[in-house]
Formats: sequence, structure tokens, C-alpha cells
Amino acid sequence: MLKKPATTNVPIHDLLAARWSPRGFDPKRPVPREQLKVLLEAARWAPSCNGDEPWRYLIWDKSRDPEGFRKAFECLSDNNKKWVKNVPLLMLSCAGSIFQHSGKPNRWTQHDTGAASVSLALQAGAIGLVVHQMGGFDMEKARAAFDVPVEYTPMAMIAVGYQAAPETIDDEEVRKKELAPRARKPVPERFFEGGWGKGVAA
Amino acid sequence: MLKKPATTNVPIHDLLAARWSPRGFDPKRPVPREQLKVLLEAARWAPSCNGDEPWRYLIWDKSRDPEGFRKAFECLSDNNKKWVKNVPLLMLSCAGSIFQHSGKPNRWTQHDTGAASVSLALQAGAIGLVVHQMGGFDMEKARAAFDVPVEYTPMAMIAVGYQAAPETIDDEEVRKKELAPRARKPVPERFFEGGWGKGVAA
Repeated sequence: MLKKPATTNVPIHDLLAARWSPRGFDPKRPVPREQLKVLLEAARWAPSCNGDEPWRYLIWDKSRDPEGFRKAFECLSDNNKKWVKNVPLLMLSCAGSIFQHSGKPNRWTQHDTGAASVSLALQAGAIGLVVHQMGGFDMEKARAAFDVPVEYTPMAMIAVGYQAAPETIDDEEVRKKELAPRARKPVPERFFEGGWGKGVAA
Repeated sequence: MLKKPATTNVPIHDLLAARWSPRGFDPKRPVPREQLKVLLEAARWAPSCNGDEPWRYLIWDKSRDPEGFRKAFECLSDNNKKWVKNVPLLMLSCAGSIFQHSGKPNRWTQHDTGAASVSLALQAGAIGLVVHQMGGFDMEKARAAFDVPVEYTPMAMIAVGYQAAPETIDDEEVRKKELAPRARKPVPERFFEGGWGKGVAA
């Protein structure tokens, strides 16, 4: 299977280095329920402000709920549909806006939901699954289709499954993306020391 | 050292299960530069919408920049000051609001910043460090003190260092928190299948 380990300046833990967001999914391998439980557990134990656990996840397993899956799929952008058609399980992460303990606005809700989702993605790698989060979907369509309450913001559609080889991807543009090298900005463009914009010494 | 592994329903990867947010830090052990680089690298390789890497981090190492550290410390809530006084290194995560490639608003910026920060926290565990993120700080004070541009939102102060035993914590309330068991809501309260609010079957 295609691996694209992060080309890091210094070594990082393999679970982090190995995680990437493939588009090649095996349409014939559903996600076993036991594996799904492990993914949810990983998200569940992410840190959150005041322990609010502000995230909510909707889950659609194509093999169990084809109609729900189809409705979720229809919310995706055309570009994402090109490869998600082979994905066996979709999730939608949503971020609540109100602290449960106080009823006050929670300004960390999206931040914490992102932490939970990447925890899920990292755990996926540990058990042989792959995850690809997508911002490319119609948020209001998803809200309407699944009665997402107004106090929750749909954040990302999450493809979950087993990886398939790049050659199985039938769209040429998508295949090209699959094979493109991964890259990140230089460290000093994102991490500052001694003042805003002052890149940390490498 | 006090460990508080997550009490999971099903086993998750040890890096995820072992991560927690202690308040006991060893004031005499600075964070080696090589270790800091590893943490930044872990955050750097987090996933982000359109590969924007919208996060920015400010870093204050008490042993190198005591004045910067003091200014950052002064932004913390009184409750956090009680234990952060022993922390050797602080960071501040900030989320940009604009996609660099398009100039348009990025609605995933806080989500992606949360993903980067928890990646950093998980990496810390892999190299013997601990991390504790805090929402309890004065955002506008931090913005003013460090010239954080208006298009960036300060999200979390991040304590980084080596763990110290709970007995080294001099404040009784803080020590009580350190020893309290970790807990999470039941899975069906956060993860839905078959409709909003319908908890996934355990």
C-alpha cells in the first residue's frame, strides 16, 4: 500500500509521521464494528476545555445504512464524490457552541473537535485503517438532511476505511493528488520565538 | 510518576491512552531544544483544510527568555498561575482566519489548530514530556502583550515540561485535581448513528 511518511526535520512518533489522508479506499472492505468502536474511543479521550467534550459525531456505515450513507454522500462536493464513492463509512464531526456545565458560549469547541478528530485519525493508523477528513461539503445541506441542531456546527466529513492502491482510483486528477508528495511550510513560518513573526531558530 | 491511563471500553493506542494534562511540573528541568523541535515537528504535520496550516505558535522558554515568559504567565488565570509557576516552557496557539491561497475566510482554522496542538501533546508523551493546554488566560491581554495580529485568534496557552510528583504541588486544590480520576461521557452521548441524538450501539 502507498505510504507517504512525513519528511520531518527531526524524527517524530511513527503514528504521527505515518498519518496522511489518502483518496484510495477499498469499496469491498467494510469497517468492522470492533474497529469503529476503537476509533470512537480514541476521539472520546481527546482533551477539551472544561472537559466539555463539545464534539458530536454522526456515523453512516454504507453496509448497514445505505440510505443514510447516500444522503451524507450527497452533501459532498463533486471533487470529493469522485473518490468517496468507494468509501465504506462516513462520519460528520460537529462542534457544540455552549458549555454544558454553565450554558455559556464555548469558544474552544471547534478547536477541541479538531483534536478529537485527529485523535481518531491517528488511532485509525494504529489498527490498519485510513481516515480522510473533508471540508468540502455543503454544511447547510448536511444540517437539514440530518437535523443537526442550530447550536452545533458541522465541521468535517470523515471518510473511514481500508486503503486501496492508487491504481484503483479511476479519476486521473484524483490519482495525481494521491501520488503527489506531502509538504509542509518551514517551521519558522508557523512557530515564533521572541516576538510575533520571528521564526524559531531551526 | 503519576500515570492516569484512560479507562477505555476497548483498548486504544498507548500514545493516546497515556496522554493526560497534569499540573505537576518539575521547575528544575528545562525543555531541551532538541525535544522542543520534535514537538513543533509533530504539530507541523497535522492535517489542515486545503493544507493551509492555519496555526501559529508563540514560544517562551523561561530559561532563555524570562521576561517573555513572565509576560505570558501574567496573562494566565489565577487558578492556572498556581501551578504554571513551575512550568519551564509556555506556548500560545493562535488560529489564522484567512486562507493564504485564496484570501477567503477559513472556517476550519480553530479546528485545525486544535488538531495540531493535540498532535504536539501526543508527541510530548512519546519523548517523556507532558503538556497541559489551558483556555484560562486573558486573550486580549495576550494579544496586546505579543502583538498578535487581529486576523489571528489566541486559542490556548500550552504548558510544556517534565512531570513532577503530585506531592510537589503546594496548592491543595490543585493537588486534588491532579489526583482526581479522569472521566469521559458515555460513547452514545457523543457518537450518533441512525439520526441526531441516537447513540451508537455500544
